[in-house]
Amino acid sequence: MDNSKRPLILISNDDGYHYNGIRSLIKVAQRHGDVFVAAPAIHQSGKSSAITLDAPVRAHLVEQREGFTAYEIMGTPADCVKLAISQLMPDRRPDLVLAGINHGYNMGISSLYSGTMACAYEGIMHGVPAVAFSYGVFTRDADTSLCEPLVEQVLERVLDKGLPRDICLNVNIPPLTDGPVHGLKVTVSDLGRWVNEWEKREHPMGGDYYWMTGEYEMLDENDDTTDMYWLRRHYATVTPCHIDQTDHATLGAIGDLLL
Amino acid sequence: MDNSKRPLILISNDDGYHYNGIRSLIKVAQRHGDVFVAAPAIHQSGKSSAITLDAPVRAHLVEQREGFTAYEIMGTPADCVKLAISQLMPDRRPDLVLAGINHGYNMGISSLYSGTMACAYEGIMHGVPAVAFSYGVFTRDADTSLCEPLVEQVLERVLDKGLPRDICLNVNIPPLTDGPVHGLKVTVSDLGRWVNEWEKREHPMGGDYYWMTGEYEMLDENDDTTDMYWLRRHYATVTPCHIDQTDHATLGAIGDLLL
Repeated sequence: MDNSKRPLILISNDDGYHYNGIRSLIKVAQRHGDVFVAAPAIHQSGKSSAITLDAPVRAHLVEQREGFTAYEIMGTPADCVKLAISQLMPDRRPDLVLAGINHGYNMGISSLYSGTMACAYEGIMHGVPAVAFSYGVFTRDADTSLCEPLVEQVLERVLDKGLPRDICLNVNIPPLTDGPVHGLKVTVSDLGRWVNEWEKREHPMGGDYYWMTGEYEMLDENDDTTDMYWLRRHYATVTPCHIDQTDHATLGAIGDLLL
Repeated sequence: MDNSKRPLILISNDDGYHYNGIRSLIKVAQRHGDVFVAAPAIHQSGKSSAITLDAPVRAHLVEQREGFTAYEIMGTPADCVKLAISQLMPDRRPDLVLAGINHGYNMGISSLYSGTMACAYEGIMHGVPAVAFSYGVFTRDADTSLCEPLVEQVLERVLDKGLPRDICLNVNIPPLTDGPVHGLKVTVSDLGRWVNEWEKREHPMGGDYYWMTGEYEMLDENDDTTDMYWLRRHYATVTPCHIDQTDHATLGAIGDLLL
């Protein structure tokens, strides 16, 4: 971190610039650094690490003042962070990428589909530490101001101590309308699965169409190492995540199988 | 695997049903089992594990005969596999998911953006073993028939011996126009990075737009454990991959940092 000036914090999300979650994140971040926002112009939930290859990407400057710049990007969450770091922030690299606060959890295996997590992954791929925040209320009007003290607590620690190289944090916060969390737990992602993933309907002119829906089944409801276990018990959770998809443990077994 | 009948093999990709790569994969798979194809109706490169949440998904039956069914899906690669397993294949679960053959590598850190790999991840999330194949020629007219012997070799082994639970294989094949590979290597994904990711152009009516482009820089060109090292030396590579994004090694360090 460059100690000669305030940290430069890049903020993105997958919901877009006009959601409460990103506004809460901006509010907290501005107390600790200069803020540069690159948010999708169109809601991008479920976009995972998708990038835009079949169309050009445009960026619209929507706000600029001392210590604060905001762009809306016609692209995916991954596009937003890539474009900001490589093109829109020419003078200085960010010291930190923050993503969210997402309206809705990114927990368990679902984080694979998360545009919010994609922002954090882009941060670490560009050598910038990153933290993604998600709140367990998915509605448009979720009161994410309730998350701000917790977000600030994590942000202060990360700005002070940094993060291990190539690691980002996936922070999930349970609904806080009934009171603050009991605490913060470092957890692994539950490796459960989605069931009943589709709702089939009939087109008025015939033929079927399908809406994605579904219910999440935990791998083991009693495993107290997982994010879902503790979120259900009103704790916030922090999962360190990486982008290395190689399964190192089975390299030998696959060699035996194939060679 | 159900030994009472021919294996049922689900095939998808991200390029679409009319590409040479998926046709080669279908051709090989049909020698070993019944085949069910669920391919995107529109080219979906770079879509990662994106799912369609903001629109319904439709499926169009395009071919059906004894032992062979093919659908085109208005959705992402992940949608294709999800919809096939949960809705379009009501009578029987697939024994294996095959993805590709992708026109273009899915190697190194780039596999994070791959719709082909997303198909394989959906397979293992649904408890079905999965293999993704990618060929180092990205053009529309790539002669993927050259890959067929290698694809068959891997397919036979996987059908015979199965795969470790929750693991899929990412198989990359170098350009074969100058001759067959020297061999097959089990590798890790190179953890390099993309640089010069954007080409900036000026809109005819003013303002900038950006095309995603870029060059890949390996983490260490001399690391002989990586996919890229061996692909450059004309070997095919197989990387076992998982969907667990938790960085187990830093759980303790993150606890020390935050708690």
